[in-house]
Amino acid sequence: MSDFCIRQAVVEDLPAIVAMLADDPLGATRESPDDLAPYLDAFARVDADPNQHLTVAERDGRVIGTLQLTVVPVLSRKGSTRTIIEAVRIHADERGSGLGTLLIEWAVQRSRELGADLVQLTSDATRTDAHRFYERLGFVGSHLGFKLKL
Amino acid sequence: MSDFCIRQAVVEDLPAIVAMLADDPLGATRESPDDLAPYLDAFARVDADPNQHLTVAERDGRVIGTLQLTVVPVLSRKGSTRTIIEAVRIHADERGSGLGTLLIEWAVQRSRELGADLVQLTSDATRTDAHRFYERLGFVGSHLGFKLKL
Repeated sequence: MSDFCIRQAVVEDLPAIVAMLADDPLGATRESPDDLAPYLDAFARVDADPNQHLTVAERDGRVIGTLQLTVVPVLSRKGSTRTIIEAVRIHADERGSGLGTLLIEWAVQRSRELGADLVQLTSDATRTDAHRFYERLGFVGSHLGFKLKL
Repeated sequence: MSDFCIRQAVVEDLPAIVAMLADDPLGATRESPDDLAPYLDAFARVDADPNQHLTVAERDGRVIGTLQLTVVPVLSRKGSTRTIIEAVRIHADERGSGLGTLLIEWAVQRSRELGADLVQLTSDATRTDAHRFYERLGFVGSHLGFKLKL
Protein backbone atom coordinates (compact mmCIF):
# COMPACT_ATOMS: atom_id res chain seq x y z
CA MET A 1 0.00 0.00 0.00
CA SER A 2 1.48 3.34 -1.03
CA ASP A 3 1.72 6.36 1.27
CA PHE A 4 -0.85 9.02 0.50
CA CYS A 5 -1.52 12.38 2.11
CA ILE A 6 -3.39 15.61 1.52
CA ARG A 7 -1.60 18.54 3.11
CA GLN A 8 -0.88 22.25 2.93
CA ALA A 9 1.45 23.11 0.05
CA VAL A 10 5.00 24.24 0.82
CA VAL A 11 7.27 26.22 -1.48
CA GLU A 12 9.13 23.05 -2.49
CA ASP A 13 5.89 21.84 -4.14
CA LEU A 14 5.80 24.80 -6.55
CA PRO A 15 7.44 23.14 -9.59
CA ALA A 16 5.02 20.22 -9.39
CA ILE A 17 1.98 22.47 -8.89
CA VAL A 18 2.90 24.78 -11.77
CA ALA A 19 3.57 21.79 -14.04
CA MET A 20 0.02 20.58 -13.34
CA LEU A 21 -1.45 24.05 -13.96
CA ALA A 22 0.32 24.11 -17.33
CA ASP A 23 -0.57 20.52 -18.31
CA ASP A 24 -4.15 21.36 -19.21
CA PRO A 25 -5.89 22.43 -22.45
CA LEU A 26 -6.66 25.89 -21.03
CA GLY A 27 -3.61 26.28 -18.79
CA ALA A 28 -1.09 25.47 -21.51
CA THR A 29 -1.51 28.93 -23.05
CA ARG A 30 -1.44 30.85 -19.78
CA GLU A 31 1.38 29.39 -17.69
CA SER A 32 5.22 29.50 -17.77
CA PRO A 33 6.47 26.38 -15.97
CA ASP A 34 10.06 27.14 -17.08
CA ASP A 35 10.11 30.43 -15.16
CA LEU A 36 9.00 29.99 -11.57
CA ALA A 37 9.84 33.53 -10.40
CA PRO A 38 6.29 34.96 -10.74
CA TYR A 39 4.87 31.89 -8.99
CA LEU A 40 7.22 32.35 -6.03
CA ASP A 41 5.85 35.85 -5.46
CA ALA A 42 2.27 34.57 -5.71
CA PHE A 43 3.02 31.64 -3.38
CA ALA A 44 4.27 34.06 -0.72
CA ARG A 45 1.03 36.05 -0.94
CA VAL A 46 -1.17 32.95 -0.83
CA ASP A 47 0.84 31.50 2.06
CA ALA A 48 0.60 34.72 4.10
CA ASP A 49 -3.21 34.85 3.86
CA PRO A 50 -4.89 32.70 6.54
CA ASN A 51 -8.01 32.41 4.37
CA GLN A 52 -6.15 30.70 1.53
CA HIS A 53 -5.57 26.96 1.84
CA LEU A 54 -3.31 25.89 -1.01
CA THR A 55 -3.37 22.13 -0.86
CA VAL A 56 -1.56 19.23 -2.47
CA ALA A 57 -2.12 15.49 -2.63
CA GLU A 58 1.08 13.47 -2.39
CA ARG A 59 1.73 9.79 -2.98
CA ASP A 60 5.11 8.23 -2.18
CA GLY A 61 6.73 11.66 -2.03
CA ARG A 62 5.32 12.77 -5.38
CA VAL A 63 2.80 15.64 -5.73
CA ILE A 64 -0.08 14.32 -7.81
CA GLY A 65 -2.91 16.79 -7.22
CA THR A 66 -3.65 20.30 -6.05
CA LEU A 67 -6.44 22.73 -5.29
CA GLN A 68 -6.85 26.07 -3.58
CA LEU A 69 -9.58 26.53 -0.98
CA THR A 70 -10.53 30.14 -0.18
CA VAL A 71 -12.57 31.05 2.90
CA VAL A 72 -14.95 34.00 2.47
CA PRO A 73 -16.92 35.45 5.41
CA VAL A 74 -20.16 37.04 4.16
CA LEU A 75 -23.24 38.80 5.55
CA SER A 76 -25.78 36.83 3.52
CA ARG A 77 -27.55 33.73 4.89
CA LYS A 78 -27.59 35.31 8.37
CA GLY A 79 -23.87 36.00 8.42
CA SER A 80 -22.26 32.86 7.08
CA THR A 81 -18.99 31.54 5.74
CA ARG A 82 -18.55 30.06 2.31
CA THR A 83 -15.56 28.47 0.69
CA ILE A 84 -14.47 28.60 -2.93
CA ILE A 85 -12.52 25.82 -4.60
CA GLU A 86 -10.18 26.98 -7.38
CA ALA A 87 -7.41 25.55 -9.53
CA VAL A 88 -8.19 21.86 -9.13
CA ARG A 89 -5.60 19.81 -10.98
CA ILE A 90 -4.82 16.10 -11.03
CA HIS A 91 -1.54 14.83 -12.51
CA ALA A 92 -2.10 13.26 -15.95
CA ASP A 93 -0.84 9.86 -14.66
CA GLU A 94 -3.46 9.85 -11.91
CA ARG A 95 -6.61 10.83 -13.78
CA GLY A 96 -9.40 8.31 -13.43
CA SER A 97 -7.86 6.95 -10.23
CA GLY A 98 -10.46 8.48 -7.91
CA LEU A 99 -7.94 11.03 -6.65
CA GLY A 100 -10.13 13.95 -7.77
CA THR A 101 -12.99 12.61 -5.67
CA LEU A 102 -10.71 12.25 -2.63
CA LEU A 103 -9.38 15.77 -3.06
CA ILE A 104 -12.81 17.41 -3.45
CA GLU A 105 -14.24 15.38 -0.56
CA TRP A 106 -11.31 16.52 1.56
CA ALA A 107 -12.05 20.15 0.58
CA VAL A 108 -15.72 19.72 1.51
CA GLN A 109 -14.79 18.22 4.88
CA ARG A 110 -12.24 21.00 5.51
CA SER A 111 -14.94 23.57 4.62
CA ARG A 112 -17.21 22.07 7.28
CA GLU A 113 -14.39 22.28 9.85
CA LEU A 114 -13.87 25.92 8.90
CA GLY A 115 -17.54 26.63 9.65
CA ALA A 116 -18.71 27.05 6.05
CA ASP A 117 -22.31 26.33 5.08
CA LEU A 118 -21.70 26.54 1.32
CA VAL A 119 -18.91 25.39 -0.99
CA GLN A 120 -18.79 26.92 -4.44
CA LEU A 121 -16.70 26.65 -7.56
CA THR A 122 -16.93 27.50 -11.22
CA SER A 123 -15.94 25.29 -14.10
CA ASP A 124 -15.34 26.36 -17.69
CA ALA A 125 -18.40 25.55 -19.81
CA THR A 126 -16.20 23.43 -22.11
CA ARG A 127 -15.17 21.05 -19.27
CA THR A 128 -18.24 18.81 -19.52
CA ASP A 129 -16.50 15.84 -17.87
CA ALA A 130 -15.75 18.05 -14.87
CA HIS A 131 -19.41 19.09 -14.65
CA ARG A 132 -20.55 15.46 -14.40
CA PHE A 133 -17.83 14.85 -11.82
CA TYR A 134 -19.03 17.70 -9.56
CA GLU A 135 -22.67 16.68 -9.97
CA ARG A 136 -21.81 13.15 -8.84
CA LEU A 137 -20.28 14.70 -5.70
CA GLY A 138 -23.54 16.53 -4.92
CA PHE A 139 -22.76 19.95 -6.37
CA VAL A 140 -25.60 21.70 -8.19
CA GLY A 141 -24.80 23.73 -11.32
CA SER A 142 -27.36 26.38 -10.44
CA HIS A 143 -25.38 29.44 -11.46
CA LEU A 144 -23.76 31.08 -14.43
CA GLY A 145 -20.14 32.09 -13.87
CA PHE A 146 -19.08 35.43 -15.38
CA LYS A 147 -15.50 36.59 -15.89
CA LEU A 148 -14.08 39.94 -16.93
CA LYS A 149 -10.43 40.03 -17.95
CA LEU A 150 -8.70 43.28 -16.98
CA MET B 1 -27.61 67.50 -7.62
CA SER B 2 -27.72 64.96 -4.80
CA ASP B 3 -24.66 63.77 -2.89
CA PHE B 4 -23.53 60.31 -3.90
CA CYS B 5 -20.64 58.20 -2.71
CA ILE B 6 -19.33 54.64 -2.85
CA ARG B 7 -17.40 53.75 0.29
CA GLN B 8 -16.38 51.00 2.68
CA ALA B 9 -19.31 49.81 4.81
CA VAL B 10 -19.32 50.62 8.52
CA VAL B 11 -21.28 48.81 11.21
CA GLU B 12 -23.97 51.53 11.20
CA ASP B 13 -24.82 50.47 7.63
CA LEU B 14 -25.79 46.94 8.70
CA PRO B 15 -29.59 47.42 9.02
CA ALA B 16 -29.76 48.92 5.52
CA ILE B 17 -27.50 46.23 4.01
CA VAL B 18 -29.43 43.37 5.61
CA ALA B 19 -32.75 44.89 4.51
CA MET B 20 -31.47 44.84 0.91
CA LEU B 21 -30.24 41.24 1.24
CA ALA B 22 -33.71 40.25 2.45
CA ASP B 23 -35.64 42.27 -0.17
CA ASP B 24 -34.96 39.82 -2.98
CA PRO B 25 -36.84 36.78 -4.33
CA LEU B 26 -34.05 34.44 -3.21
CA GLY B 27 -32.90 36.35 -0.13
CA ALA B 28 -36.38 36.63 1.39
CA THR B 29 -36.30 32.99 2.51
CA ARG B 30 -32.74 33.08 3.85
CA GLU B 31 -32.36 36.28 5.86
CA SER B 32 -33.60 37.60 9.24
CA PRO B 33 -33.61 41.42 9.04
CA ASP B 34 -35.41 41.65 12.40
CA ASP B 35 -32.52 39.98 14.22
CA LEU B 36 -29.20 41.64 13.45
CA ALA B 37 -27.11 39.72 16.00
CA PRO B 38 -25.75 37.07 13.57
CA TYR B 39 -24.94 39.79 11.04
CA LEU B 40 -22.93 41.75 13.62
CA ASP B 41 -20.68 38.74 14.15
CA ALA B 42 -20.25 38.29 10.41
CA PHE B 43 -19.57 42.00 9.90
CA ALA B 44 -16.73 41.84 12.43
CA ARG B 45 -15.15 38.92 10.54
CA VAL B 46 -15.54 40.61 7.15
CA ASP B 47 -14.20 43.89 8.51
CA ALA B 48 -11.13 42.24 10.07
CA ASP B 49 -10.10 40.58 6.79
CA PRO B 50 -8.05 42.93 4.58
CA ASN B 51 -9.06 40.94 1.49
CA GLN B 52 -12.77 41.64 2.00
CA HIS B 53 -14.09 44.96 0.75
CA LEU B 54 -17.69 45.30 1.89
CA THR B 55 -18.95 48.34 0.04
CA VAL B 56 -22.04 50.55 0.06
CA ALA B 57 -23.39 53.22 -2.24
CA GLU B 58 -24.95 56.15 -0.38
CA ARG B 59 -27.07 59.03 -1.65
CA ASP B 60 -28.04 61.91 0.63
CA GLY B 61 -27.12 59.88 3.71
CA ARG B 62 -29.17 56.84 2.65
CA VAL B 63 -27.59 53.46 1.80
CA ILE B 64 -29.00 52.43 -1.58
CA GLY B 65 -26.67 49.70 -2.79
CA THR B 66 -24.07 47.19 -1.63
CA LEU B 67 -21.61 44.58 -2.81
CA GLN B 68 -18.73 42.58 -1.38
CA LEU B 69 -15.44 42.45 -3.26
CA THR B 70 -13.08 39.61 -2.26
CA VAL B 71 -9.41 39.60 -3.27
CA VAL B 72 -7.92 36.15 -3.98
CA PRO B 73 -4.21 35.66 -4.70
CA VAL B 74 -3.68 32.59 -6.89
CA LEU B 75 -0.84 30.71 -8.57
CA SER B 76 -2.54 30.34 -11.95
CA ARG B 77 -1.96 32.79 -14.82
CA LYS B 78 1.67 33.16 -13.73
CA GLY B 79 0.81 34.05 -10.17
CA SER B 80 -2.05 36.50 -10.40
CA THR B 81 -4.74 38.15 -8.33
CA ARG B 82 -8.41 37.83 -9.02
CA THR B 83 -11.38 39.45 -7.36
CA ILE B 84 -14.82 38.02 -6.74
CA ILE B 85 -17.94 40.15 -6.56
CA GLU B 86 -20.66 38.79 -4.26
CA ALA B 87 -23.94 39.94 -2.75
CA VAL B 88 -24.75 42.76 -5.16
CA ARG B 89 -27.96 44.46 -4.10
CA ILE B 90 -29.65 47.69 -5.19
CA HIS B 91 -32.44 49.22 -3.11
CA ALA B 92 -35.86 48.61 -4.72
CA ASP B 93 -36.41 52.38 -5.11
CA GLU B 94 -33.20 52.71 -7.10
CA ARG B 95 -33.45 49.86 -9.57
CA GLY B 96 -33.23 50.97 -13.19
CA SER B 97 -31.45 54.16 -12.15
CA GLY B 98 -28.02 53.10 -13.43
CA LEU B 99 -26.75 52.62 -9.88
CA GLY B 100 -25.93 48.95 -10.51
CA THR B 101 -23.71 49.95 -13.40
CA LEU B 102 -21.91 52.55 -11.27
CA LEU B 103 -21.39 50.05 -8.47
CA ILE B 104 -20.01 47.28 -10.72
CA GLU B 105 -17.81 49.73 -12.62
CA TRP B 106 -16.46 50.94 -9.29
CA ALA B 107 -15.71 47.31 -8.30
CA VAL B 108 -13.91 46.72 -11.60
CA GLN B 109 -11.83 49.88 -11.14
CA ARG B 110 -11.04 48.94 -7.53
CA SER B 111 -10.01 45.47 -8.74
CA ARG B 112 -7.53 47.06 -11.15
CA GLU B 113 -6.10 49.20 -8.33
CA LEU B 114 -5.72 46.05 -6.23
CA GLY B 115 -3.66 44.45 -9.00
CA ALA B 116 -6.25 41.96 -10.21
CA ASP B 117 -6.23 40.70 -13.79
CA LEU B 118 -9.61 38.97 -13.57
CA VAL B 119 -12.95 39.81 -11.94
CA GLN B 120 -15.40 37.00 -11.47
CA LEU B 121 -18.89 36.49 -10.12
CA THR B 122 -21.69 33.98 -10.30
CA SER B 123 -25.34 34.73 -10.81
CA ASP B 124 -28.25 32.38 -10.16
CA ALA B 125 -29.43 30.86 -13.44
CA THR B 126 -32.93 32.27 -12.79
CA ARG B 127 -31.68 35.89 -12.73
CA THR B 128 -31.75 36.40 -16.52
CA ASP B 129 -31.99 40.20 -16.25
CA ALA B 130 -28.80 40.17 -14.21
CA HIS B 131 -27.07 38.07 -16.87
CA ARG B 132 -27.84 40.64 -19.59
CA PHE B 133 -26.67 43.38 -17.23
CA TYR B 134 -23.27 41.75 -16.65
CA GLU B 135 -22.86 41.00 -20.35
CA ARG B 136 -23.46 44.67 -21.18
CA LEU B 137 -20.63 45.51 -18.77
CA GLY B 138 -18.24 43.21 -20.63
CA PHE B 139 -18.46 40.09 -18.47
CA VAL B 140 -18.49 36.76 -20.30
CA GLY B 141 -20.69 33.96 -18.98
CA SER B 142 -18.13 31.31 -19.85
CA HIS B 143 -18.48 29.15 -16.74
CA LEU B 144 -20.95 27.02 -14.88
CA GLY B 145 -21.24 27.86 -11.18
CA PHE B 146 -21.62 24.90 -8.82
CA LYS B 147 -22.76 25.08 -5.19
CA LEU B 148 -22.85 22.46 -2.48
CA LYS B 149 -24.87 23.29 0.64
CA LEU B 150 -23.35 21.83 3.81
